[in-house]
Amino acid sequence: MPSANASRKGQEKPREIVDAAEDYAKERYGVSSMIQSQEKPDRVLVRVKDLTVQKADEVVWVRARVHTSRAKGKQCFLVLRQQQFNVQALVAVGDHASKQMVKFAANINKESIIDVEGIVRKVNQKIGSCTQQDVELHVQKIYVISLAEPRLPLQLDDAIRPEVEGEEDGRATVNQDTRLDNRIIDLRTSTSQAIFHLQSGICHLFRETLINKGFVEIQTPKIISAASEGGANVFTVSYFKSNAYLAQSPQLYKQMCICADFEKVFCIGPVFRAEDSNTHRHLTEFVGLDIEMAFNYHYHEVVEEIADTLVQIFKGLQERFQTEIQTVNKQFPCEPFKFLEPTLRLEYCEALAMLREAGVEMDDEEDLSTPNEKLLGRLVKEKYDTDFYVLDKYPLAVRPFYTMPDPRNPKQSNSYDMFMRGEEILSGAQRIHDPQLLTERALHHGIDLEKIKAYIDSFRFGAPPHAGGGIGLERVTMLFLGLHNVRQTSMFPRDPKRLTP
Amino acid sequence: MPSANASRKGQEKPREIVDAAEDYAKERYGVSSMIQSQEKPDRVLVRVKDLTVQKADEVVWVRARVHTSRAKGKQCFLVLRQQQFNVQALVAVGDHASKQMVKFAANINKESIIDVEGIVRKVNQKIGSCTQQDVELHVQKIYVISLAEPRLPLQLDDAIRPEVEGEEDGRATVNQDTRLDNRIIDLRTSTSQAIFHLQSGICHLFRETLINKGFVEIQTPKIISAASEGGANVFTVSYFKSNAYLAQSPQLYKQMCICADFEKVFCIGPVFRAEDSNTHRHLTEFVGLDIEMAFNYHYHEVVEEIADTLVQIFKGLQERFQTEIQTVNKQFPCEPFKFLEPTLRLEYCEALAMLREAGVEMDDEEDLSTPNEKLLGRLVKEKYDTDFYVLDKYPLAVRPFYTMPDPRNPKQSNSYDMFMRGEEILSGAQRIHDPQLLTERALHHGIDLEKIKAYIDSFRFGAPPHAGGGIGLERVTMLFLGLHNVRQTSMFPRDPKRLTP
Repeated sequence: MPSANASRKGQEKPREIVDAAEDYAKERYGVSSMIQSQEKPDRVLVRVKDLTVQKADEVVWVRARVHTSRAKGKQCFLVLRQQQFNVQALVAVGDHASKQMVKFAANINKESIIDVEGIVRKVNQKIGSCTQQDVELHVQKIYVISLAEPRLPLQLDDAIRPEVEGEEDGRATVNQDTRLDNRIIDLRTSTSQAIFHLQSGICHLFRETLINKGFVEIQTPKIISAASEGGANVFTVSYFKSNAYLAQSPQLYKQMCICADFEKVFCIGPVFRAEDSNTHRHLTEFVGLDIEMAFNYHYHEVVEEIADTLVQIFKGLQERFQTEIQTVNKQFPCEPFKFLEPTLRLEYCEALAMLREAGVEMDDEEDLSTPNEKLLGRLVKEKYDTDFYVLDKYPLAVRPFYTMPDPRNPKQSNSYDMFMRGEEILSGAQRIHDPQLLTERALHHGIDLEKIKAYIDSFRFGAPPHAGGGIGLERVTMLFLGLHNVRQTSMFPRDPKRLTP
Repeated sequence: MPSANASRKGQEKPREIVDAAEDYAKERYGVSSMIQSQEKPDRVLVRVKDLTVQKADEVVWVRARVHTSRAKGKQCFLVLRQQQFNVQALVAVGDHASKQMVKFAANINKESIIDVEGIVRKVNQKIGSCTQQDVELHVQKIYVISLAEPRLPLQLDDAIRPEVEGEEDGRATVNQDTRLDNRIIDLRTSTSQAIFHLQSGICHLFRETLINKGFVEIQTPKIISAASEGGANVFTVSYFKSNAYLAQSPQLYKQMCICADFEKVFCIGPVFRAEDSNTHRHLTEFVGLDIEMAFNYHYHEVVEEIADTLVQIFKGLQERFQTEIQTVNKQFPCEPFKFLEPTLRLEYCEALAMLREAGVEMDDEEDLSTPNEKLLGRLVKEKYDTDFYVLDKYPLAVRPFYTMPDPRNPKQSNSYDMFMRGEEILSGAQRIHDPQLLTERALHHGIDLEKIKAYIDSFRFGAPPHAGGGIGLERVTMLFLGLHNVRQTSMFPRDPKRLTP
């Protein structure tokens, strides 16, 4: 960029450059004109994370945000931030910088984006407050590329302060609604950057593992004509002159793909639940990682594939995202996530026995309450030292109509949930692939057959036995990192009370 | 599986086994009981595509569909199909099969799923009608795993017959509504299997390329609080006691991620358009492959990244999916897709000149009609020999309010479309990252500022210059393969008249 003092924005701040006539550095700083792709300068911008002693004494250009600035006599220290990385920069009166230039630098609002030309200098004492501890940048030119407003709705340093420290010494932290109302700033913190870089990794590992296992990715429609399973908890959409619904799960479509010979399919997409649940783990829209697979003789073939997929995700995260895990741990300390290979599979009756031994009173055909799930998670961790396990053979009575009954025990079913740190992250089952039995079970559940005719008809032209499940992406991210609210792991969360930003 | 004549379904077809007493093969065939995961037999099922001369004289188990069957005296020939692969199987009266068993095999409804034990035998004459041409399977045991109903709503052989052949010799083809009404059967054809395996590959190549380029995958909400861009063509959702809308594009959220320092992001997800357009290329719900990227000085940095991503997809498809391309070509013949490296970039004014030279009358600030886009595609193909190009610098007047004006020509904008075989597959632009200019342009377009306040506010705390675009997955699949209707490349298409299956 050329000198920019004469730019549109520069004209708005004339007081800072009153002494322009006698300012020998006046071409070296200013507010740059808006980048409208006027030109293609031959300039390399160096990444902040690459500013190391290897670059000592080189002149480099950097684009970064002003994280903090502190003027001190004839000097101004800036911390320049780029994603999770930051470096100290020094503007000091001398050959390159005038006192007007130092003042200009000191007055740049925090969070503004600037272009800086500077010399990389090795420092004698490590700079503990920056990720780039061994160097600082001696600034020769500084231009504002995009100016931030002076008042920020939240301070990034407050937003990454561990809660407990805030309580102890009275320093500010940021409450969740303020974070979410100002999500674009909250997402800039090192914690948020780490969470969502890791979440991107979960999706990548999920697909990488499944594609290696021979699965095919499918795309399923989200607007559907009939509310499945009786129509509870479903959002209605105005569809031209009639009504439609938002899919609560891609399950029926995954199953149709199995009936259409795709054999092993997965999809990643939004899932909609019109539940008025205001808890730490419910969203009205979340991202489902869904799997469906034809098997040969036993649904455990599928359980093993799904559990192994999760294990590959956990291993991949621990191998490739250690920096991100540690960054999140600084703000939210947590034990490393533990798992076994192969995955522990408990039967529901075994879990009941463990809970009863711990004093819980429960019926054989009763579903697990959330507190009992958590308690069971603790008992399993104590006994087996794992944060991840499969709970198999749920009572038939507590599962959906399409769940395959256990042929050996009519009160049980070929269904399973998977748990991380005592919370459910996946629900799945062998599905009934026989139209006659499916009809019987739907009638038993009081479901209007007319509404699920297309679904049942899908099985009339030969259907292989199959099973599957759906994983909640935000829950996996939350529980892997030991966080406590699913809103921390959804970029723009949706709940009954929040539809913005 | 054990012998199964006594099974539930077996009991329903007693007439076929009347001579059971004198049937020496009665344990070797039948309708198997429903697979409910009763047991885990130690049996390997061999894939049809692996039935080659290398396996000659081996005894194997295969699970496949009955594609066709033909009885001939004491023999029955079956074609067994598994996805795109098929093999001939022979049941012949002899040591292993009785005449009752041959009759049973001959009576199995087409599309039923069966388990077969047989010896792989090399054949002297290639079997032209099967993919496995050098072997056939001599059946020793045959069990029905899932019985298809006798009347199929469409015949697979009709569904893969090239249109032109049907017209020429009067043989049946299947019309589109019949296909879509019975999608689970239509999706079993070799053509459909190839289309959707290739589509899975497009998503994979898109992500693989972008992850290698340092992009981060994001998840954006589909339920939004305000209809952007004035509220036209948007679906309304009942959201608890109020209303919400379905996102017409993830663009605003992608841009917020750029403002939140993610720098280079992509997402794959559903996009909703409440347009009453009943054309070959419009859907009310389609899959968007979206990209957004901060750039340094010129939006062409982004154009080059997007165009290169598409080129990597085209190359990857031609390298990895040649079988699928050829399978689709058998039914829908088409020239191979051509592209240049680097991608051709034409300016709008150049395109206008080419069209005018071809006799089209158009204003400088007029948008391209669909026929003119197609004509331009043909002119570009003739002149440059490419099916893929970028059309840059659209008139400002025909683009959305957030499009960055061209600083050198106020009637032009920093925006672009990308075309495949003369049809638009991507629309994109440098976005305005300055809240003041954005406000001016929104007012110029008559947009209610209150409705886009959150969007404009996203740029108040420092925003890098950025650009992006959205690609329609179904269109890319359709145009790469030279197909003629986007419904062929959407598994379960949605249009104003179709919401099922």
